[in-house]
Amino acid sequence: MQYLDFFESAVSSLKEEKRYRIFADLERQAGRFPHAIWRADNGLEREILVWCSNDYLGMGQHPDVIEAMSDTAQKMGTGAGGTRNISGTNHPLVQLEAELADLHHKEASLVFTSGFVSNEAAISTIAKLLPNCLILSDELNHASMIAGVKNSGMQKQVFRHNDMEHLEELLAAAGKDRAKLIVFESVYSMDGDVAPIKEICDLADKYSAMTYIDEVHAVGMYGPRGAGIAEREGLMDRIDIIEGTLAKAFGTLGGYITAKAPIVDAVRSYAPGFIFTTAMPPAIAAAACCSVRHLKESQSERDGQQRQAARTKEVLSNAGLPVMPSDTHIVPLFVGDPDLCKQASDILLDTHGIYIQPINYPTVPRGTERLRITPTPFHDDTLVDGLCEALKDVWERLKLPHIEPGTFHDLTKQPEQQVFQAVGG
Amino acid sequence: MQYLDFFESAVSSLKEEKRYRIFADLERQAGRFPHAIWRADNGLEREILVWCSNDYLGMGQHPDVIEAMSDTAQKMGTGAGGTRNISGTNHPLVQLEAELADLHHKEASLVFTSGFVSNEAAISTIAKLLPNCLILSDELNHASMIAGVKNSGMQKQVFRHNDMEHLEELLAAAGKDRAKLIVFESVYSMDGDVAPIKEICDLADKYSAMTYIDEVHAVGMYGPRGAGIAEREGLMDRIDIIEGTLAKAFGTLGGYITAKAPIVDAVRSYAPGFIFTTAMPPAIAAAACCSVRHLKESQSERDGQQRQAARTKEVLSNAGLPVMPSDTHIVPLFVGDPDLCKQASDILLDTHGIYIQPINYPTVPRGTERLRITPTPFHDDTLVDGLCEALKDVWERLKLPHIEPGTFHDLTKQPEQQVFQAVGG
Repeated sequence: MQYLDFFESAVSSLKEEKRYRIFADLERQAGRFPHAIWRADNGLEREILVWCSNDYLGMGQHPDVIEAMSDTAQKMGTGAGGTRNISGTNHPLVQLEAELADLHHKEASLVFTSGFVSNEAAISTIAKLLPNCLILSDELNHASMIAGVKNSGMQKQVFRHNDMEHLEELLAAAGKDRAKLIVFESVYSMDGDVAPIKEICDLADKYSAMTYIDEVHAVGMYGPRGAGIAEREGLMDRIDIIEGTLAKAFGTLGGYITAKAPIVDAVRSYAPGFIFTTAMPPAIAAAACCSVRHLKESQSERDGQQRQAARTKEVLSNAGLPVMPSDTHIVPLFVGDPDLCKQASDILLDTHGIYIQPINYPTVPRGTERLRITPTPFHDDTLVDGLCEALKDVWERLKLPHIEPGTFHDLTKQPEQQVFQAVGG
Repeated sequence: MQYLDFFESAVSSLKEEKRYRIFADLERQAGRFPHAIWRADNGLEREILVWCSNDYLGMGQHPDVIEAMSDTAQKMGTGAGGTRNISGTNHPLVQLEAELADLHHKEASLVFTSGFVSNEAAISTIAKLLPNCLILSDELNHASMIAGVKNSGMQKQVFRHNDMEHLEELLAAAGKDRAKLIVFESVYSMDGDVAPIKEICDLADKYSAMTYIDEVHAVGMYGPRGAGIAEREGLMDRIDIIEGTLAKAFGTLGGYITAKAPIVDAVRSYAPGFIFTTAMPPAIAAAACCSVRHLKESQSERDGQQRQAARTKEVLSNAGLPVMPSDTHIVPLFVGDPDLCKQASDILLDTHGIYIQPINYPTVPRGTERLRITPTPFHDDTLVDGLCEALKDVWERLKLPHIEPGTFHDLTKQPEQQVFQAVGG
């Protein structure tokens, strides 16, 4: 049997669909974010600007966070040396879990080596432990949540994105006596919109459902102590399980859940993806802990990011570039075609030294391909202006459509044909 | 609905079965492995010896590896800042993947944030891409491999552990024309036995099957360059996919696969557990790369570990302690009861300052509970002798059965009743 053919043809079909991914080989410069070295395929090195990092606040270059990592590695070594149960639980990790529980005002927390694993392991385990559980899942939930829902083996119903009428309809149909788990995100990362958390909690109370929120694109960045959107809106105590990441605004690696102690203990005790995996190294845990503590106290990073995100939206919108409406720090710029999206990204990098990865299907629906821009506090006004000039050049070269200056791109008013006209042009 | 009750009762049932896990809060001392600080629940700190780490060669405290981590954090920051596709691919990670492909003489490799994820993502994706694939899985395969098999949604058949007749029977029944994937480990970590790799490859050739080997307990430690058992036996080129870890003998964090380029590219392009997760931080990648490079050249760690593992087996066996036969560096000591196993572990820690976690169901079958000892090159002869004295005391106190000095415990001759008698004693 010619096994290799199957893998070759799977890869070829991605290339034909123009959604084969090429990874940019980057070397960020600590102390100089968002500057980085980019190494092209021909081996040439070039300094570029990163405009699409999820290190939203630049905490990955904070001297205290770097020092915590470096110091802890010197004192305790580079790895954990075992699973959590078999010699891998290290003191910085214990401290980090206490810090996270405190951040969210919950009884306990549990750290995983990634946000993907935390969602997969927690959702699947929690749902499995509830007899005949029905999972109600927002249609735009992240792949890791979908994996958790699927691997639970429980029945799921998908509600239309942020649609409370639809959610209520499903809850009412399931009845009060059936175990129900509502899983949703606070900030949807590709559109930058926010869930109606209070309304979801109200419905959960009314129909007796549990709530599971993914705050990975919000922790560190919203709320007076950086605990996320639920903190900002005074709703943390109404959410049963909060999931977050240490790999975005906290600038390190890993994911976590936080909840009442018995829930956390059950996930800790039953989830294979947690039990059978090596623990987070002490140096990573110490760095994450330092970052969480810092952002509990410091507002300057949050303020700086909000300011530069707002400015980026304003400057691009005023230039007639099709910024999609966003309630958060995320600035999506509509393109609407995978090939053009890739071309726009390539021109930005090659000609302007600006790195923004194209976002194509399956990360976003086909026909809504976009450039996703994430300004940090370190993207100053000069850099924002430079970005705008570069994008204007790209839009010119590719004959991409503009919108009326000062407005935002309305996805519902952009028929797919109009976008595909641009391809012909 | 009283949701908390379900979680509380799930945890209670583990406590009743005596398999509720309590994590030891440890702080390893770089430069002084296997010494560590243990913090008890009462907050008291105490220096102890770790005898159950999977940092098999102590590479987590190697000065060059620590320096690589620390240096890279200073230069590039603490996190990767994005998924592999969206700004997270960093130069040390690109270098690490090249190093791993070279280590195994394969065309390409792909790094994941854990060995669990590498198995889950790779096995499920590879099997899904093969039409009507039949997966043949060794019955003692690790939980992460089982997750990969399950999440592929493909048919699986389990063959009796290392039983080539049974495997051939299943292969022959499937026929040559059906796509088949044989998944197995080289070193089974709880028993320390080794798979008949050559025979599996012969059968794979005969019946046209693909082969997937998990070498996580072998990479770094076997073969002239530390590429694992398949390298030691000159069989690497006969295995289609080799999976390994960076979190055990290489002393850091993460997992990987290595194979022909189209296979790796397909997993890279299709596996949600790879695509939708933040990349490994550059500091971890640099540390792992340093460790892999070091162990390609240096034999002293491997020699030291083999010597101390052999000596530990000899000393314990000569004392009549029931060491289970093992072909590798792993030294399993039979107890056969979860409660006694926990008690043995507690006495070792409380009285002797020796930390060996009890290994109970579901990690090993019920009735085969054990202490799993992993001597490193840093467990010198004095420490081995100290361990033996401590174990003799524990065996005495708990009235655990001895075997004839100089022999090994034969699991097949130990009826379950005999073990449970010990509980009564």
